[in-house]
Amino acid sequence: MKSFIYHNPTKIVFGKDCVKESLAAELSHYGTRVLLTYGGGSIKKNGIYHTVKEALQQAGKEVFELSGIMSNPRTTKVREGIALCKEHNIDFILAVGGGSVIDCTKFIAGGATLPDTVDFWQTFFLDHQPVMEALPFGVVLTMAATGSEMNNGGVITDWETQKKLSGYGPALFPQFSMLDPTYTYTLPREQVAYGIVDMLSHLLEQYVSTPDDDNVTDSAIEGIFKNIVRNGRKSMEYLEDYEARSNIMWGATLALNRSLGLGKDQDWMTHALEHALSAFYDIPHGAGLAIMHPAYLRWILPNATARLMRFAKEVWGIEQGTMSDTDYALAGIEALETYFKEIGAPSTLEEVGIPKGSLPDIADSCVRYPTAYSNLTPKDALAIYESVYKK
Amino acid sequence: MKSFIYHNPTKIVFGKDCVKESLAAELSHYGTRVLLTYGGGSIKKNGIYHTVKEALQQAGKEVFELSGIMSNPRTTKVREGIALCKEHNIDFILAVGGGSVIDCTKFIAGGATLPDTVDFWQTFFLDHQPVMEALPFGVVLTMAATGSEMNNGGVITDWETQKKLSGYGPALFPQFSMLDPTYTYTLPREQVAYGIVDMLSHLLEQYVSTPDDDNVTDSAIEGIFKNIVRNGRKSMEYLEDYEARSNIMWGATLALNRSLGLGKDQDWMTHALEHALSAFYDIPHGAGLAIMHPAYLRWILPNATARLMRFAKEVWGIEQGTMSDTDYALAGIEALETYFKEIGAPSTLEEVGIPKGSLPDIADSCVRYPTAYSNLTPKDALAIYESVYKK
Repeated sequence: MKSFIYHNPTKIVFGKDCVKESLAAELSHYGTRVLLTYGGGSIKKNGIYHTVKEALQQAGKEVFELSGIMSNPRTTKVREGIALCKEHNIDFILAVGGGSVIDCTKFIAGGATLPDTVDFWQTFFLDHQPVMEALPFGVVLTMAATGSEMNNGGVITDWETQKKLSGYGPALFPQFSMLDPTYTYTLPREQVAYGIVDMLSHLLEQYVSTPDDDNVTDSAIEGIFKNIVRNGRKSMEYLEDYEARSNIMWGATLALNRSLGLGKDQDWMTHALEHALSAFYDIPHGAGLAIMHPAYLRWILPNATARLMRFAKEVWGIEQGTMSDTDYALAGIEALETYFKEIGAPSTLEEVGIPKGSLPDIADSCVRYPTAYSNLTPKDALAIYESVYKK
Repeated sequence: MKSFIYHNPTKIVFGKDCVKESLAAELSHYGTRVLLTYGGGSIKKNGIYHTVKEALQQAGKEVFELSGIMSNPRTTKVREGIALCKEHNIDFILAVGGGSVIDCTKFIAGGATLPDTVDFWQTFFLDHQPVMEALPFGVVLTMAATGSEMNNGGVITDWETQKKLSGYGPALFPQFSMLDPTYTYTLPREQVAYGIVDMLSHLLEQYVSTPDDDNVTDSAIEGIFKNIVRNGRKSMEYLEDYEARSNIMWGATLALNRSLGLGKDQDWMTHALEHALSAFYDIPHGAGLAIMHPAYLRWILPNATARLMRFAKEVWGIEQGTMSDTDYALAGIEALETYFKEIGAPSTLEEVGIPKGSLPDIADSCVRYPTAYSNLTPKDALAIYESVYKK
């Protein structure tokens, strides 16, 4: 196990009706001029907006709004939010939505503390400065996927330059996140599936990495992975299965609250391959991961055989029998592919409408870095994309 | 999964040399008049005391000391620490030791903020008031067992009244805890074993409880339990196995940082049975748990058969075959007993020198409460003690 530092001060409030019962009280600890951030308006249809507004009113807040935060949130939207914060002297932000709304909110919160002459994108993303200061913010979560509700990172896309990059900083932990599993009931089926793909992909980025020792967090991941597979399946069968939706909601948070990669190098190359795709073509992150994660695992198989054999055995319960090591490792990857298909996620780039001719440019733009299992050239990245263009 | 709130702001710094490399810097964020708390002096023999004092000096602290904190720490020692804090205007406490030193430190930190006319034992333990205010404190951990380094509870014994009770409060999270696995190398073998028993017992108190659904944290516990069993065995084989000691050190923290009981009722009746023993006879907590946990599981077996069958299957890998459900559940308990014996823990009260005649008084004093699986009378408690008096 490698040395590590872990510090996660976000307060989690979890369960049916938690927002209705606790949001007003939680808000009472924070500022009076609140920016409410949310997405395309689904929260107005399902009643969540109304509940949140009531709590804000009950807590005596003056409320300003930023709506229309898109999936793969963009620099333009972050800048719009920063301007609102400065104009209205906002002292607390409340994000109501999934990972995109939370990520956008994080960099609004960080960017609002920068002088007008300093650009958040340049500072936090291109210059890789960690966010050391931010407006405090809280979260009402409506989708189980990214874990952004309990970590200090986020991903923003600059559409003009076609860059989708990660930023982070100690000031970006939410003060609190409220997780009511029933708030995820009205999500479209495919978004539920993409969320499941995302959380499993997060577990894999941590699990399929060195050191390949007997780390206790790897053992925890194996248990959690299996639970999400089971409860993901149940969730897709019946979207209002409270137990199943509870498990995948809390599972998603665990999968990226950074407690499960401790002592590991971690990989994250699949995320880089996916970010390049969705920076060019605005596909859902989970759809891209469902295509790219098996492809990446096949690519690294020769270097990661032992780890992938353990994945086949401990997560999928496959016995080696007469299989060669390579075939055994492959069997785990195939089980993953089969599961992604079963819950309705795509498996080829063609399915999500990415033109084959664009792959060289995407491969060129993909952020690449050496990991223990891969050290991709643009040509390698292209080969991985091409391997799942069409089957 | 039941509703829950989770908030754990303790910062963890983990790994070889972390104290040497980071303690001075970490201390720089806190007060200038530091009370250093520790146990019987083993830290002076193994060099830890020297390293810590150097860091305190480097950080420019004025240092006062409270040594001689015993296992099963007592009210008298807490009062001694509170008096020192008040006398010297202490503004930070640094605990160097295992769970006993940390627990004692927690209630010194809480008690130091009480007016002189208010007694900590009466307030935090007999009146069950949560500790809302405390001096900030940090931890240098030297034993893997209790998880006190990353939670907000502790156990104190009042020897006069023979009560060993739990207290807690939001102010009792350490500001930071430093975990260097090599700091645990010089522990006596039996203390390593008792630590392993303690962490497994913590996992069981959370896992063997209702609701008996497919909670993702139960799945995590299964993975972590198996890992601790493996690495506990390796640790006992070779005390300086860094990987093994790392895993049981971080495993102990995970086992009671309160993240693994989320959504569960939890039980903790075995701990109550053990606390009654060590309040009368000053036996090591882990020794008492090794005797009492299998005994308690046998007692609740008729009510907890399904859960214990899952324990046999998922944790110990036992297949049911032709066994009856009861026998299958029992097989998991027997595997646990066998493991405790294997690492050198006792299995009868006679072995730890408790006179049989004292059992009725111990049973009478045991704190009992209804759990989903048990609702013990003093007579029941006595029957459980007697069942493991001698084999």
